[in-house]
This record gives sequence, structure tokens and C-alpha cells, in this order.
Amino acid sequence: MNAKISFDRLREFIACAFSKLGMPDGDARIVAALMAEADLQGSDGHGVIRLPQYARRIRAGGVNLSPQIKVVRERAGMALLDGDNGMGHLVMRRAALMAVEKARNTGIAWVGSQFSNHAGPASLYARMALPHDMIGLYFAVGNANHLPPWGGLDMLLSTNPIAVAVPAGEEAAVVLDMATTVAAYGKVKAKAQRGELMPEGWMMDREGKPLLDPKRAEEGFLLPIGGYKGYGLSLIVGILAGTLNGAAMGREVIDFNHDDASVTNTGQAVCMIDIDAWGDSAGFKTRIDTLVRELRDSRRMPGVERIWMPGEQSRIKREDYAREGIPLAPALLESLDKLAGELGISRLLA
Amino acid sequence: MNAKISFDRLREFIACAFSKLGMPDGDARIVAALMAEADLQGSDGHGVIRLPQYARRIRAGGVNLSPQIKVVRERAGMALLDGDNGMGHLVMRRAALMAVEKARNTGIAWVGSQFSNHAGPASLYARMALPHDMIGLYFAVGNANHLPPWGGLDMLLSTNPIAVAVPAGEEAAVVLDMATTVAAYGKVKAKAQRGELMPEGWMMDREGKPLLDPKRAEEGFLLPIGGYKGYGLSLIVGILAGTLNGAAMGREVIDFNHDDASVTNTGQAVCMIDIDAWGDSAGFKTRIDTLVRELRDSRRMPGVERIWMPGEQSRIKREDYAREGIPLAPALLESLDKLAGELGISRLLA
Repeated sequence: MNAKISFDRLREFIACAFSKLGMPDGDARIVAALMAEADLQGSDGHGVIRLPQYARRIRAGGVNLSPQIKVVRERAGMALLDGDNGMGHLVMRRAALMAVEKARNTGIAWVGSQFSNHAGPASLYARMALPHDMIGLYFAVGNANHLPPWGGLDMLLSTNPIAVAVPAGEEAAVVLDMATTVAAYGKVKAKAQRGELMPEGWMMDREGKPLLDPKRAEEGFLLPIGGYKGYGLSLIVGILAGTLNGAAMGREVIDFNHDDASVTNTGQAVCMIDIDAWGDSAGFKTRIDTLVRELRDSRRMPGVERIWMPGEQSRIKREDYAREGIPLAPALLESLDKLAGELGISRLLA
Repeated sequence: MNAKISFDRLREFIACAFSKLGMPDGDARIVAALMAEADLQGSDGHGVIRLPQYARRIRAGGVNLSPQIKVVRERAGMALLDGDNGMGHLVMRRAALMAVEKARNTGIAWVGSQFSNHAGPASLYARMALPHDMIGLYFAVGNANHLPPWGGLDMLLSTNPIAVAVPAGEEAAVVLDMATTVAAYGKVKAKAQRGELMPEGWMMDREGKPLLDPKRAEEGFLLPIGGYKGYGLSLIVGILAGTLNGAAMGREVIDFNHDDASVTNTGQAVCMIDIDAWGDSAGFKTRIDTLVRELRDSRRMPGVERIWMPGEQSRIKREDYAREGIPLAPALLESLDKLAGELGISRLLA
């Protein structure tokens, strides 16, 4: 039976934990709000479930709690931020806000990061475009390599995600948030926890045969979407988010699941497109409404009850969870209780 | 037995055909060079094989031979071009050159098109970044819908391709050029011509079952890469290249294989990233060299002889074909001879 927690309580708990860990209160509140928002939209592999890991890394000295985030390169349409090894949420929130400001003038702006860290779900930062009637794009180098080059055995690439958020008028925004692998590694871990097998196509073993047992995940690799195409896409996302920014890519990527102390030099990038530069955003949003309805109203294959837009299931979760509370599995709640005990703060559920 | 044609002769033949069809000589030379370049790099579904179709469309009045390509919107980092229903090659070449100029100042620039037309392989325009030490991105709405929304039956989306070109130092540039479907529609047509079956995963029928016979292609759909992920990616590419530009998307897309006369209002977009804005392009290219070598030198799966970089096979073809000539299949040569006869120009092979 899952417990249900309000967004406000979850955010408060996370902020309190970070404060106790030594993070300045203002920063703790910002990171907590973004992590709780991840859970609110159902990105549960990237929300509060990461708190024990972040705490471990902070205690190991792997994160700078008082980063001086600096602009190291800048032009009218771009900036490169040095995150000073701070929490990725702080770095990428600043990057997104900066890109919005720049895009107002130039029509499009791109802000990348070096020396950032894991920042939660990609869609959080792409979505920051929406209140400004902009389209947001986000690219990141994942924080552990699980993917070899196509045909290879050495895990040199990560699940390098892409997110794109597009505002609509009466319809909900279209929000794509996808790893360039068939399954994100978090989904494999969830299958293992539940004692289930993986479907064919998620992973393969070192002989190229399907790997179905998630407990054997370390013996194989994630599969890229579309075979060699997803390999290429993961590589390109890694170049745009990592290599271009002077951040880690390829062999340089630190596996932050197994290493709490090394500086990850995580690279991410956000790009904002000011729709008004192309004409008028109201007209654009009406055209998106029309497109969404055309797709949704398509005739369906046998057995298909509904055609989903990218991001629509997250939006429904956001509405449901805001009303009814965010469900947290017993094992997660237990690990958060343990952390609360260690930190001497109130448990999530009083 | 394939005939082999030099790049120069192929370009001359195409330019001559367009001139005879009424295209101004300068434009004919530009389009011919880009089409011949497509064949030279092995993008043989998008090169001279399209000439008979383009000729048919020109004669049907479906293309404006004297377009006034206009900038309809502009800011420091962006422009929107109205292609005036001219050949897409002319519109997107202009877009790419304009984006390069703008990116020199702003660091990144994005130029989109409306009222453009089919422009050949996506990589042609992304690659225009390379001589300027820039990264080039290209997005396009395909010119025929072959993809329903995930779970749907109505073909509302196209193969909407993405191309990205990244300069390297001593290594060849990394060039990704991919449809968001597992197979491009041209590959299905090629299988049908050769009387071969398609592998499972390329297409499905209206019940969701694998479709293997390419002669039955009209009874089914192309499959997106990664299932619902590729559906989302195709939709997003279509929004960026089509909807944002006020170009055709969804139901508005004209199937240019079956309709020679209607204005297609094709939308495309090119984005140029000036690497020097991020630091120094020489250092970047060295880092790409290192990354390419790491990937190439990965241990390999049993039976795999070589690990390929995106774009590497095209580069090898470009070198081979420049030396030995471009191979053209007998059926293609026959269709070009027929066209030459109709136009009263010399055949490709004297």
C-alpha cells in the first residue's frame, strides 16, 4: 500500500533534509521544489527517490554546497555556465532562466553547462519555456554509461536524454522527455525491485542475445532506440551537452551510482525558442491545438482505447497527485525515514 | 550491372535538364550540384533518382521556377524564409548560409522555411556548418505522411528527419542523418523493386501485425524508432520544422508522390552553432577526435568487424565514388534516358 504525500509536505521534507546537510536555505528550497515537482509529474525515478543518493554524495564531499555558478563564455544568443560542482538543479534552473532572457532578444538562445551535476528529469527545464510562450529543448549527458557504440562491448555512452516542451492553447503543452535508449536504467532497477522480467528489446547480453532478467543487468547493455540510430542520437546528444561544453563525455563520465566523491563534470544544455519571433504565439498555439486534436481523433488500432500526446500522462498525474497526494512506495518511505533519523529531522509522515 | 558516372557529368546532366525545364541557369547549377552531391555520398534515394519526379512537378506547375525567396521574420539569432514555392534546395541553401552568418555574431542561429519544397537529404544542409567550424542541425517535415500517431490508423505524420553534423580534427566529421522511422520510405520502395521482403520491424499492418511484403506497403505503416518515442520525436520535429514556420504539418501535408501540382508548403529548419563561442574550435575538434577513437576502439561483439561512426559510411562512399564514379542502377539510367529524350538533351552516358 503506497502512502500519499502532499506536494507541499514533500517539498518541505526535502528542503529540510538539504538544510541539515549544510545547503543554504534558499538553494535547498529551490532544489526541493524541483525534486518534488518531478514526483508530482510522475517522474518518480528522478524525484525524492534520489534524496538518499544525493545525501550520500554531499556527505562524501562530491557536491559543492556553496557553488559560485559563473558565466564563462557569453554571446547574445548563448552562454556557457561553470556550475562549480553545485547541484545540477541550481545550475540548469539558472541556465533555463538565462536562455529565456536571451531568447527574448535574439529569438533563440542556448545555454550549456560544465561542472554541473545530475539535475533530475529533463522535462523540468524544457518546461521552463512554457510560461514565456517559448519552446524549450533540453539535452544532457547521463550520469552513468550503460550503452556501448553499436556493435561494441565497452559502455562509453549514457542514456543521454532529450526533452522538448511546446506550448498549446486550450490543449495541454506537448512535452517529450525521452532517453535515447529503449528503457531508462531506472526502469530496469524498478523491474528488479518488483522481481519481474524485462520485455525483449530493453537490454542485450555481451553476445547480442536478449537479456530479460533485470538482476543480471550488469552483464549486459541497454539497447538504443532504433538500433544504430539511437546509438547515433545518444552520441550527438552527448556531444551537444557534454563535449561542446567541455564537460565529461565517453570514458570521462563518472558512474555516480558507484562513485560518490569524484567531480562528475556533468554537461547539460537548454535551448529556448521565442515563438513570437516567428510570428505570433497565439496563432501558433491554436495551430498546436488543431494538430493535437487531429492526432488524438485518429482512428485507432484494434484494442487501443486512447491515443496519447507526449507529456499527457504526466499532466494527468500532476492533476491527480496535486489533488490526492503523491504515492510513495513502502521501500522508498522506509529509506526516507532512515535518512530522517540520521539527520534528526521529522519523518515525512508524522 | 551498374553504370558509373562521374560527379561532374552527373551534375552537368541535371543542370542541363533543369535549364531545359525553364529554371534560370544559376539556380539550375546550384540544385544540380546539391543533387549530385547526394548521390556522391550514397544518399541515392534523394539524388538524381528524384529528377524525373521533380521534372513532372515542374511541368505540372507545382514548383515556382523563379521564386522570390523572402525573409518574412528576422531577429539577431533567427529568420523565417518564405521560399515562394521554389525548389527546396535553393531555399535551404540560403537558410544555411544565413544561419552561419548570424551564428558568427550570436553564437547560435536558427533559420526556418515556409513554402519550401523537398530539398534532398537532410545531411546536405547540416554539413554546410562544417567549413565554418560550426555544428549544424537540420529538421524537416517529410513530403508524404506514412506514420500514424502511436496506436492510431490515420497517417498524420511523416518520416520527419533529423541531421546533425559535427566537425572533427584529424578524424572525419560525425554526421547523423536519420528518419524518425525505423526505415525511410525510399528503402521500402527499393525492397519492392528488388523483389525482396522487408525485415520485421520496418512496417506493420492495420492490425498491428508485422508487414513484410513491400508490395503491400500501402496497406500498412512505417514503424517509428523506439515505438512511442519515435512517434513523439517525429511529432516534435514536425512542430519545429513545420508548425513553428507556418508550414504544412499533419493533415496539411501534401503527398508529393501522388500530387504534382499542389503547393506543398514544405517546412524545414537549420540551426548553426558557432563552436568558437564556447571556447576554441581547435580544442573541440581534438576532443571529438579522442571521442571517435574511443568509440571505434571499443571491444566488439562476436562477429562485428568494425564499429562505425555516424556518417562514416557516407564519407567512404564519397571518396570511392569521387575516384571511381557514382554507380547508377539500370532502371534509373533508363528513366533518365527517357527524360533526356523528352527534353531533347544529351543522355547521361554518351
